[in-house]
Amino acid sequence: MSMYEFFPFMDGEGADLRDLFIRRCQYKTIIKKGDNVRLYPQRHAFLNKGLLKIYMSNAAGNERLMWYIQEINPIPYNCSFGKRVVAEIDSEILYIKREDYLDHIISSRGNLETYIERVNKRYFFCMQQVLNENIYSCNTKIYSFIYQLANVLGKKIENGQIVIKNLPSRKDIASIVGTHRSNVTRYITELEKIGIVEKRKGLIIVKDLKALEQLIDQQEFND
Amino acid sequence: MSMYEFFPFMDGEGADLRDLFIRRCQYKTIIKKGDNVRLYPQRHAFLNKGLLKIYMSNAAGNERLMWYIQEINPIPYNCSFGKRVVAEIDSEILYIKREDYLDHIISSRGNLETYIERVNKRYFFCMQQVLNENIYSCNTKIYSFIYQLANVLGKKIENGQIVIKNLPSRKDIASIVGTHRSNVTRYITELEKIGIVEKRKGLIIVKDLKALEQLIDQQEFND
Repeated sequence: MSMYEFFPFMDGEGADLRDLFIRRCQYKTIIKKGDNVRLYPQRHAFLNKGLLKIYMSNAAGNERLMWYIQEINPIPYNCSFGKRVVAEIDSEILYIKREDYLDHIISSRGNLETYIERVNKRYFFCMQQVLNENIYSCNTKIYSFIYQLANVLGKKIENGQIVIKNLPSRKDIASIVGTHRSNVTRYITELEKIGIVEKRKGLIIVKDLKALEQLIDQQEFND
Repeated sequence: MSMYEFFPFMDGEGADLRDLFIRRCQYKTIIKKGDNVRLYPQRHAFLNKGLLKIYMSNAAGNERLMWYIQEINPIPYNCSFGKRVVAEIDSEILYIKREDYLDHIISSRGNLETYIERVNKRYFFCMQQVLNENIYSCNTKIYSFIYQLANVLGKKIENGQIVIKNLPSRKDIASIVGTHRSNVTRYITELEKIGIVEKRKGLIIVKDLKALEQLIDQQEFND
């Protein structure tokens, strides 16, 4: 894969926590597609089923899509971050008391190490975003995001083709890679012209993942 | 202060850990100005005296100055991050075993909460960097950095003026705010022309901190 590491998906990290959240569950709720997930200062939340998007804002109120949380994952707890959590598909959330969560972590050195690893993974991703922001060109970022979508959310069909249902909106793609919406349209159309993807209503088919990967590797830096 | 939050200094967060590092110290060392601080996978390090700079690299090897660590602070432990830690002035480092550090955290819920706060502070800063990167103009970033330097590392002299000794190199300032070196020279010269700062060999005097703050508040967004 390319030197551009862009993997805004939290996936399957929370298997070790699922038991805890089911056992100590205070409150369980279904969030409909497009609705916000409520976060509470004294509770930790867990995505048991579905897919969530995390938006963050800076002090000036500019909001940006930062990442996706896949099912079987704790929802990062940082109420102060100007964060908005939105269901990308219907999603099931479990809540436990914050004390139960903390007590679980301090119950063993291993649990703490798992917790640290999980936090560092997010922190590492965030750091990479800073380091890569002005280095990679806009099309590299868009191609890489589609490549990751295919790997993470895509379903294989015949001839090694991959279908991505629920393709994120152009607005969301622009937000997560840090570009304008018009660039998203432009570069996806380019991928279509050279036969790497095919757009259909609400979905995209990646016809040649290997060619997409090679294209990303050939991209030049922005500088 | 301005809506642009840029505070790349870890300061005095580690007072609660100092005892632990002194008590369990395995190894103590002095790092000369400009030299690298060694990090080990099985040890945690603590800056007891001095000032450190943390550089991070992306997968392509592009390095950037990310922040400063002031004395009485643990040195973030993430050996996998392509990180380089450099002494900005002669610095004293204490090392303890990783297990001792983890055991300290899990010894109470309060210690874990302090640890989480410390990690979140870094994570929050990093997140803000992503969110602000393309929003604030280059001069806002440079002015804000000098404002923070004055507050954190500056020493008050007569008439409310503030001296910043060991002014970071233009290269470091450019790296930390994400711009070119020529911009640093240009905007510091502008500050000098309007009488807000005065440059002397190896130091800078902020003559009017209030005026600098107002200037930052008046900056327009990049967009």
